Amino acid sequence: MSFDRLQKKIDDMQNPSVVGLDPALEHVPPHILQKHVAEKGETLEAAGAAVCEFNFGLIDALCDIVPAIKPQSAYYELLGPCGVLALKQTCDYAKSKGMYVICDGKRNDIGSTAEAYAVAYFGTVKVGNSELRPFDVDALTINAYLGSDGVKPFVDMAEKYDKAVFALVRTSNPSARELQDKFIGDERLYTIVGDLLEEISRETVGEYGYSRVGAVVGATYPEEAEFLRARLSNTFFLVPGYGAQGGAAADAAKAFDKNGRGAIVNSSRGIIAAWKKSGEDYAVAARNEALRMRDEFRKEIY
Amino acid sequence: MSFDRLQKKIDDMQNPSVVGLDPALEHVPPHILQKHVAEKGETLEAAGAAVCEFNFGLIDALCDIVPAIKPQSAYYELLGPCGVLALKQTCDYAKSKGMYVICDGKRNDIGSTAEAYAVAYFGTVKVGNSELRPFDVDALTINAYLGSDGVKPFVDMAEKYDKAVFALVRTSNPSARELQDKFIGDERLYTIVGDLLEEISRETVGEYGYSRVGAVVGATYPEEAEFLRARLSNTFFLVPGYGAQGGAAADAAKAFDKNGRGAIVNSSRGIIAAWKKSGEDYAVAARNEALRMRDEFRKEIY
Repeated sequence: MSFDRLQKKIDDMQNPSVVGLDPALEHVPPHILQKHVAEKGETLEAAGAAVCEFNFGLIDALCDIVPAIKPQSAYYELLGPCGVLALKQTCDYAKSKGMYVICDGKRNDIGSTAEAYAVAYFGTVKVGNSELRPFDVDALTINAYLGSDGVKPFVDMAEKYDKAVFALVRTSNPSARELQDKFIGDERLYTIVGDLLEEISRETVGEYGYSRVGAVVGATYPEEAEFLRARLSNTFFLVPGYGAQGGAAADAAKAFDKNGRGAIVNSSRGIIAAWKKSGEDYAVAARNEALRMRDEFRKEIY
Repeated sequence: MSFDRLQKKIDDMQNPSVVGLDPALEHVPPHILQKHVAEKGETLEAAGAAVCEFNFGLIDALCDIVPAIKPQSAYYELLGPCGVLALKQTCDYAKSKGMYVICDGKRNDIGSTAEAYAVAYFGTVKVGNSELRPFDVDALTINAYLGSDGVKPFVDMAEKYDKAVFALVRTSNPSARELQDKFIGDERLYTIVGDLLEEISRETVGEYGYSRVGAVVGATYPEEAEFLRARLSNTFFLVPGYGAQGGAAADAAKAFDKNGRGAIVNSSRGIIAAWKKSGEDYAVAARNEALRMRDEFRKEIY
């Protein structure tokens, strides 16, 4: 099962972290962008090719120590269709290097449209007699505001193609409290969303006890993470907010179960833009920072 | 202001409808797909080119009677990067024909990531000394579950580039009640979301009294539409659920203000797949159905 594969990679590497590949152009070393601009002009095609080269270098530097990448779709859409091509090429390359790929798209819709998103990221499209794969990632982030009609099509396709989703439950931003923390009867909205996800995914639990429907639970609010970890026993957590957003490893550690499993912590800028602080080659700087983060979590969790 | 331009187009055409360009491959006439497969093989590139030809034909047939299109991003992502290219080409072509373009992506994130989405769809990206436009649509749908941190970056970019957003408030699907209808104190969640949007966008009201932050309010629940219309006086409504999803024109009419303004109603399959029922050429069938829908709304609203 998809999250079993992820957990095995985490166990093998003793590293429950995922690198957020969020390649805003200011994080791409200037010499890489300049090289592609020299070839392709000042175009989005050049920018997309530069992002690809940057990501491939990061993947080469990280794939033996980090189990997963999480490309944030926004930074690829930001470069138009050429950027989306870079997203696909990045996902394919990371998979070829054995990494688990979580596309952070926070997609959401209902019925046949939700199904179209799920097929886009998980499945195959038939053109004539050929079955073609539009993206083929391991997991996709989704937003559950539309209710179960907006989640089930993703879960069905995840079942069909052995993939997984992470739905937003309690996010890491200050204004998450405006809606997610509000009480509905005796429970907060995020708890109701979490319960709904457990109910929808109950039949999909794998060998580590986690279903195909994970949850995004921010590290910046450790009490919430602790509460949700206790309540949502079948839900694998994706934890943003560590590092640049202010969450500490001890806070993020609250998202793990008593065996040190069931969660993965994201760091984006802290790793991919480490070269800007250290002055080293970007791949060397990213690897050093990823090792530092790994060792920090090893101390907290194992 | 962006919604003023939309309202003027609606007034000029006496037609408050938007055509959802949701080109699932089964809605594309087979001869179009076959032509591109003959040229490019059984590839996603061929499928993307077929979708483009289909859409361009629809736009040609509709641009003098329908003010706006709403391409649903899922059906383009479904064809991978080639599909996203077809999305961009469709948006650009519709704009060249004078149509208002609403990209239905239901995007959502926080901080610099939300800003990246907003720039992707509204703004310009700098590569070297060149300012390039990744997509450049008039409006984008968003999901507000993350709270104001997840909405404000879109509003700021909408201000900067004279664009607009529609945020999900009360959707048209049955399970919308699982979360959106729940009471928080005396108000339902969707009311709290709607109030939040009005508060965020107060400073952006244009000449018709509507702000840059619209709301998605389903036609399948007319009582909710009537209640929200009365409460959210500065919020332009995008109304899905008419036609194929079961909403009637009289229901959708509840979303309009007393001057017959402040809302636009979507129809997707009903128009773009009309050829499958009528046996006519797809463009003729779409135009006939768009005229029928227009006349139905003229009776209800004006």
